[in-house]
Amino acid sequence: MTLYHVDFEPIGRRGDCSDEQSLLESARQLSVDLVSICGGMGSCARCKIQVASGQVSELTIDEKNNLTERELAQGYRLACHTFPRSDVKLHVLPDSLSAPQRTQVEGLEVTVQPDPFVRAYDVQLTPPTIDTPVPDDVALWHSLANQHHLQPGSIDLSVLQTLSQQLRDLNWQARVAMSENEIVAISSPSTRWLGLAVDIGTTKIAGYLVDLESGKTLASQGLMNPQISYGEDVVSRINVARRSQADAERLQKLLVDALSQMAADLCAQARARANPTDIVEAVVVGNTAIHHLFLRLPVEQLGLAPYVPAVRAALDIKARDLGLQIASGAYVHLLPNIAGYVGADHVAMLLATRIAESNGIVLALDIGTNTEICLNNRGKLTSVSCASGPAFEGAHIKFGMRAAPGAIEHLLLTNEKLEYQTIGNAAPVGICGSGLLDIVAQLKSNGVLDHHGRMGEHPRVRVGNHLREFVIVNEQERDGLDAITLSQKDVRELQLAKAAIRMGIQALVEANGLAENDIEQVIIAGAFGTFIDVSSAITIGMLPPLPLERFTQVGNAAGTGARLALISREQRVQAKRIAEHDGYIELASVPNFNRKFAEATNLG
Amino acid sequence: MTLYHVDFEPIGRRGDCSDEQSLLESARQLSVDLVSICGGMGSCARCKIQVASGQVSELTIDEKNNLTERELAQGYRLACHTFPRSDVKLHVLPDSLSAPQRTQVEGLEVTVQPDPFVRAYDVQLTPPTIDTPVPDDVALWHSLANQHHLQPGSIDLSVLQTLSQQLRDLNWQARVAMSENEIVAISSPSTRWLGLAVDIGTTKIAGYLVDLESGKTLASQGLMNPQISYGEDVVSRINVARRSQADAERLQKLLVDALSQMAADLCAQARARANPTDIVEAVVVGNTAIHHLFLRLPVEQLGLAPYVPAVRAALDIKARDLGLQIASGAYVHLLPNIAGYVGADHVAMLLATRIAESNGIVLALDIGTNTEICLNNRGKLTSVSCASGPAFEGAHIKFGMRAAPGAIEHLLLTNEKLEYQTIGNAAPVGICGSGLLDIVAQLKSNGVLDHHGRMGEHPRVRVGNHLREFVIVNEQERDGLDAITLSQKDVRELQLAKAAIRMGIQALVEANGLAENDIEQVIIAGAFGTFIDVSSAITIGMLPPLPLERFTQVGNAAGTGARLALISREQRVQAKRIAEHDGYIELASVPNFNRKFAEATNLG
Repeated sequence: MTLYHVDFEPIGRRGDCSDEQSLLESARQLSVDLVSICGGMGSCARCKIQVASGQVSELTIDEKNNLTERELAQGYRLACHTFPRSDVKLHVLPDSLSAPQRTQVEGLEVTVQPDPFVRAYDVQLTPPTIDTPVPDDVALWHSLANQHHLQPGSIDLSVLQTLSQQLRDLNWQARVAMSENEIVAISSPSTRWLGLAVDIGTTKIAGYLVDLESGKTLASQGLMNPQISYGEDVVSRINVARRSQADAERLQKLLVDALSQMAADLCAQARARANPTDIVEAVVVGNTAIHHLFLRLPVEQLGLAPYVPAVRAALDIKARDLGLQIASGAYVHLLPNIAGYVGADHVAMLLATRIAESNGIVLALDIGTNTEICLNNRGKLTSVSCASGPAFEGAHIKFGMRAAPGAIEHLLLTNEKLEYQTIGNAAPVGICGSGLLDIVAQLKSNGVLDHHGRMGEHPRVRVGNHLREFVIVNEQERDGLDAITLSQKDVRELQLAKAAIRMGIQALVEANGLAENDIEQVIIAGAFGTFIDVSSAITIGMLPPLPLERFTQVGNAAGTGARLALISREQRVQAKRIAEHDGYIELASVPNFNRKFAEATNLG
Repeated sequence: MTLYHVDFEPIGRRGDCSDEQSLLESARQLSVDLVSICGGMGSCARCKIQVASGQVSELTIDEKNNLTERELAQGYRLACHTFPRSDVKLHVLPDSLSAPQRTQVEGLEVTVQPDPFVRAYDVQLTPPTIDTPVPDDVALWHSLANQHHLQPGSIDLSVLQTLSQQLRDLNWQARVAMSENEIVAISSPSTRWLGLAVDIGTTKIAGYLVDLESGKTLASQGLMNPQISYGEDVVSRINVARRSQADAERLQKLLVDALSQMAADLCAQARARANPTDIVEAVVVGNTAIHHLFLRLPVEQLGLAPYVPAVRAALDIKARDLGLQIASGAYVHLLPNIAGYVGADHVAMLLATRIAESNGIVLALDIGTNTEICLNNRGKLTSVSCASGPAFEGAHIKFGMRAAPGAIEHLLLTNEKLEYQTIGNAAPVGICGSGLLDIVAQLKSNGVLDHHGRMGEHPRVRVGNHLREFVIVNEQERDGLDAITLSQKDVRELQLAKAAIRMGIQALVEANGLAENDIEQVIIAGAFGTFIDVSSAITIGMLPPLPLERFTQVGNAAGTGARLALISREQRVQAKRIAEHDGYIELASVPNFNRKFAEATNLG
């Protein structure tokens, strides 16, 4: 037995592994949660990895059969069939990782040249004397003019309230943070000005602490949206906010306090000294309802036809007006919304995916309880919002659950042989969204479900509670617990959810005089979209039947978009352009909606 | 006896008076407090009035002797020697009124063409439909663009928070208040937008409610500055604010709450319906210390050489950031300061007196505990601040008091004959500032005080407490109470106060290479400056010995300046120009300060 150093990137797990164990076994040894449904038989082809450097064992027949020519040319291998023959460095695709680990590596890179909205200027002031008793603000603007060629602008009240003392304490040397022509913070010359980018999802909040000068992300954090105690979906929260002013204020305060805490935590997490008061700008994105709840904007009209937002425009709000504990003079920038159900988070996603810059025909979608879809038809953007419902998050599905340990996330059915993979390889307890898609797709491929989603015969199909159900894990396998099943009703729920998405895609395509096959690229963003198996989504007819290489799964692109807007003026201009020129379609106003929707429920 | 209708303007007192009583007696009958020291003998010439219309009795010899040719030509008469011969309308000069009544009529007129910073726009919006679900902010900007050719700008957060509901409640018709390109308030189409102008003095606050569209003052109010409980002068309040954050906050809150109450009172006073939330802008002026205390700006450096303000620039602060209860999105505009002891109130006074627009050589001064003086030398402005002390307000003078009933406000000494006038013709209890000036001037004219202010012999001079003192009202006349006297020490106090002012004038004149006699016009502003007898001020050497017609007393010009800045953009530009181009001189840095000051203490 020889030991080789095996390095799994980009998650950065590495260690010495025996040449006698496969890379799949090495991955398990090093806690890399590679997906493997078939248990290492080489048949499911889910444990794909790319060999970046080093020598490995010869290609096997199974690999040649299960990998495409392109994949083979790019050095892809099946981890279960490959053994190290030297120290090796491996690249793991997000696709091949189990859901919880996947979120750690996902998200598009921030690649723009930093040109932040808030800029830093170091100044050296001339102290006043009895012969030249220059007021402090005048002295500051003099130095900014002489040393940086800036015109006098304004100074935030909170800065003015500490300015005189600070200038004297700092011996007339200071670093200034300027937003446009307003001084929003002042500190010692060594201060590193920070930015906070936040994507507030209905369920989760993702926050990033960014060095404004370098554009680098110093720390990141995810947490639950505390509003969830007032309702899992935005409609119930809108109803809470409508009850009374006090309720609306409580909903806002929950979010603001969570963000203040996040800012403090991120600063503590960042390696070098960082203070929340060094955060001189924040960019916040969220769907339109979350955006409105965060700002205490009226939400009543969001819940009633024609579902219009109070505000579409990008906003700059003083942090203190919201109660957010960062620099008091800092602004919170809210990216623009597009419509009542296409919010700033969608705009951020479009920024991050650079879809607006494309000259081709590109579709971008963020799948969730509400699915926002945007089509760029050679420069012309159109968006639509579909009420896809909470089935993907486990709601209304008998054994549905979120992506957590024990959730069946991938499944393979070959005639009567059923194989599945759970998150964390734990004992199965339910089915998460990607598992649900896989099951329905496999049942369809195996002829257990027909075109209309009707469940037929199969040794695992039984009738329970007057409904047919497909048994995934039976009572014996669960030591007497209830069997994990998928019922006819569950299939119907998924059909409704996927129909909404497919209809949205078709509405966009038709409004642009195109056919689905004209779509050159499909970008799937958001946590759930990242976990799904695209082939399964095509099989059940949720996504159009395009060649797989046209699809890209990009993870939390909204958070990336927020970071882009934080460090790039150009990206803010782009966001404004997107929001103003997006030709939003209200799905309910599509002609023959009902007939089209019914058609879209068909599987495949 | 015949009754005629006698009308005293501009104080608006009128009634039927006998042709057998003089106009002085008619004035008393109608509660018009005309000054009369000689008691109607025609010798003091203080009860001057101008006959605007109607017939009166023939001119007497005493009148011909005591009125100038110019006064006679303009219809001036002595009220004590004039009798009505028809219904008459009389114009009363501020000079001829007793102090408390004078403040009611004083103050320069607001004469500029209204061009307010905050503008009103009526709009009619198109409601959203399911086919055109236009966001509310976008719909609002559309209507402003279509109906008023305005470019989209920003909307205050507090406006956004009520916008959607308001637009629906108002059936999509609204009136908008715009400050630059920001919407700061929105209401029903009939709303009259209001402005609040406030002059915060160290002792008193004067507030004005203004109709922004017409520029008319709808109501005005004066009240005591509540900070007075923390010290009569600004230096003691600076010391309080330096003690702790909590003290500084308390001082600010006192002012802000007083202004909020004033806004409510003024609205209640205004005839037509007016709400504090209709006040969409406020302009506030005050001396630099008051300005800083109002904004919670640091004041420590104001109390230490070189006495620099934290802020010179004009500021626009959201009313909510100060806690001021007017429209939440409204701005409070603070006019610029010039120096640590030449504040925004001085700039406002310069605006109101239009001194900056003059091409001549004009001096403007606001006499008080601190006296600010500005010289316009053919377009070039220079200001100085003099610590004249609180003697004029009665402090450090044994029988000194504020201008209140019973205060001796004017006095005449002819050899041994002493005549005086008290405010409200009440029994004398003390001496107010204008009385103090008169007494010292009369003692000097009658040779009781020499050039150096040393008290000599006179039947009314006695020695009490090792000090010489001049008896104004003796014990018998006061029914056994202490005699009202002026001591040698009181004279010294006044000499110090007046020396500071005269030195300031001389410093300005010298810095400009001029002589005092080159001054073509002297404008005396402020409450105290309005009450004084200019001849007395010249006699004691407080003011330079220029012909009387070069002097004008204009009352509370700072309040007028604040109103000008509220309703005129041009006046704000002018204020900025004044503050930036004023060549402030620090009196302490004048060469040979001590020798010059000693010289300036000389009387006459």
